[in-house]
Amino acid sequence: MTITALGERALIARLRARMPPPPDWVLTGIGDDAAVLQPERGMVDVVTTDALVEDIHFRRGWSAPEDIGHKALAVNLSDLAAMGAAPRALLLSLALPESLPLDDFDRILDGFLALAALTRIRLVGGNITRSPGPLVIDVTAIGVARPRRILRRSGAHPGDRLFVTGHLGAAATGLALRGSGVDLAGLDADRRACVSKYDRPDARLRTGQIVAHNRAASACMDLSDGLADALTQVAEASGCGVEILGDALPLHPGVLDWAAATGADARGLALSGGEDYELLFAVPKRRTRLFLAAIRQAGETTVTDIGVCTKERMTCVVAGDVRADLPAGFSHF
Amino acid sequence: MTITALGERALIARLRARMPPPPDWVLTGIGDDAAVLQPERGMVDVVTTDALVEDIHFRRGWSAPEDIGHKALAVNLSDLAAMGAAPRALLLSLALPESLPLDDFDRILDGFLALAALTRIRLVGGNITRSPGPLVIDVTAIGVARPRRILRRSGAHPGDRLFVTGHLGAAATGLALRGSGVDLAGLDADRRACVSKYDRPDARLRTGQIVAHNRAASACMDLSDGLADALTQVAEASGCGVEILGDALPLHPGVLDWAAATGADARGLALSGGEDYELLFAVPKRRTRLFLAAIRQAGETTVTDIGVCTKERMTCVVAGDVRADLPAGFSHF
Repeated sequence: MTITALGERALIARLRARMPPPPDWVLTGIGDDAAVLQPERGMVDVVTTDALVEDIHFRRGWSAPEDIGHKALAVNLSDLAAMGAAPRALLLSLALPESLPLDDFDRILDGFLALAALTRIRLVGGNITRSPGPLVIDVTAIGVARPRRILRRSGAHPGDRLFVTGHLGAAATGLALRGSGVDLAGLDADRRACVSKYDRPDARLRTGQIVAHNRAASACMDLSDGLADALTQVAEASGCGVEILGDALPLHPGVLDWAAATGADARGLALSGGEDYELLFAVPKRRTRLFLAAIRQAGETTVTDIGVCTKERMTCVVAGDVRADLPAGFSHF
Repeated sequence: MTITALGERALIARLRARMPPPPDWVLTGIGDDAAVLQPERGMVDVVTTDALVEDIHFRRGWSAPEDIGHKALAVNLSDLAAMGAAPRALLLSLALPESLPLDDFDRILDGFLALAALTRIRLVGGNITRSPGPLVIDVTAIGVARPRRILRRSGAHPGDRLFVTGHLGAAATGLALRGSGVDLAGLDADRRACVSKYDRPDARLRTGQIVAHNRAASACMDLSDGLADALTQVAEASGCGVEILGDALPLHPGVLDWAAATGADARGLALSGGEDYELLFAVPKRRTRLFLAAIRQAGETTVTDIGVCTKERMTCVVAGDVRADLPAGFSHF
């Protein structure tokens, strides 16, 4: 059975039926012209929107519907994480192809709502329409933060160290593995982890919030479009340069495997590969201890010191005696 | 030149270049991972999202790009109007086909930003991605309202009169005219007005806000999916029925013309035709004067008394001695 057998109202009813009762700050939830939310005292609102478009950001033949739903939310949570905000409310706007099986619709919601429950963000409204082409999942995420604890891209200063969470290049390698048509069941654990990172990224929410709470970083950005892009954006917004130690980049072990097997450029995947959804931080030297303590407290992932902010407005990678310009980032465009 | 010649960053830069400087409550605007907004003291947030999908809600061959941009915002403002909220902030999420001419992109923004300026709503963030199929314009609108003045669908009581703003069926007639392939230049003023209402609807923002401010209505909903749908939704949400006077429906003169020329059912267009974006109000009898004064004060449009809320949970249209069930609403699905 496809979704068209039900129609918009029945699909919305299906969605509402599986939602937990709303908290008291949702004064009006799904089912009116708009949702009404009581602001949180002393906090500012942090709002972001990001869309997943079929055949651009995912393929229905590749990813399980639950993973598509999970990823549509995770990429938005990653934006909140990069600001140091706590998740609060969600709007979900779906454009659905007529041929979408009802079971896929349910499973997309399963993935989406499971991650929403886990991260305590509440779906308060949305929209469902038909699409004559791709499935489009557009999410608006609303978070809250203390006004003086917001992490921006623009706060880095020359001398600040640059740290990145987790391991890089995994999602790009996962995408390459998906595209290569290999049997995923036969992959070793490292490569499977890369595919999983591409299909089902996780946002570094706790890390972003605890670093922000402790004012342990001067700037932050998530790696949706890759490390090289994030470094360029932070440098531009902060009016400084960056110098990265090529040998320090924390490559995911699956990336090294893949590069060894195919001749792919491992460092290139780590710098330019998109969708890792890790966080890049600039940290003033005197805050380094505080920052590392916050990372430990968050307990989500490790961090690696990958370089420094410079006064000279350049963006380069140093490896041995070789100094090269940063490559371009990943683009969904 | 198409948009792909520029890419995402250049398109965002192009958009930012034409935006006015942000007000002081926008603590971080476009250009970070998320926007940061200072809530308005004593107010609640009203949030809604609605998408326009090419070939579902508009056709690029039919509508001018400026009108598409205008409509994408207007349908969201209409949701704020129906809640009695004042517009505040916007997120714009675009999925753009590679073939989209850059000039069309600019003109869509022209229409969008002109209406945003007129209604004093600020674009604070968004997202641009590629679409392998239709152009999709997804908008999230954030408004503010006093908590006790919100207009909901659920407040109607038996005995409340039902009023509708403006004239009905115009957008459906405009859609039929667009679909008929007639030369629009040769149309008379009434029919041209119908096409214009379809291409470029206006939200009844001032009307919604002033009625809400004066607590002059018990319930409200906009007519995005037609009057019959709105009546059914208000009746269901309020736990009452509705009885509509078929002869009282304020048909747009272009609808009558079109019906006379083609044999179309004028009342059917007024009841089931979507996208009029007028407002339906339920008004307690003792508030009728206050309500009519609010409508005059708003000065946007007229209202017509079309029926009454009933204790019996039915939804019917009465014309002479004939009593019929309300037809189904319009569906984009």
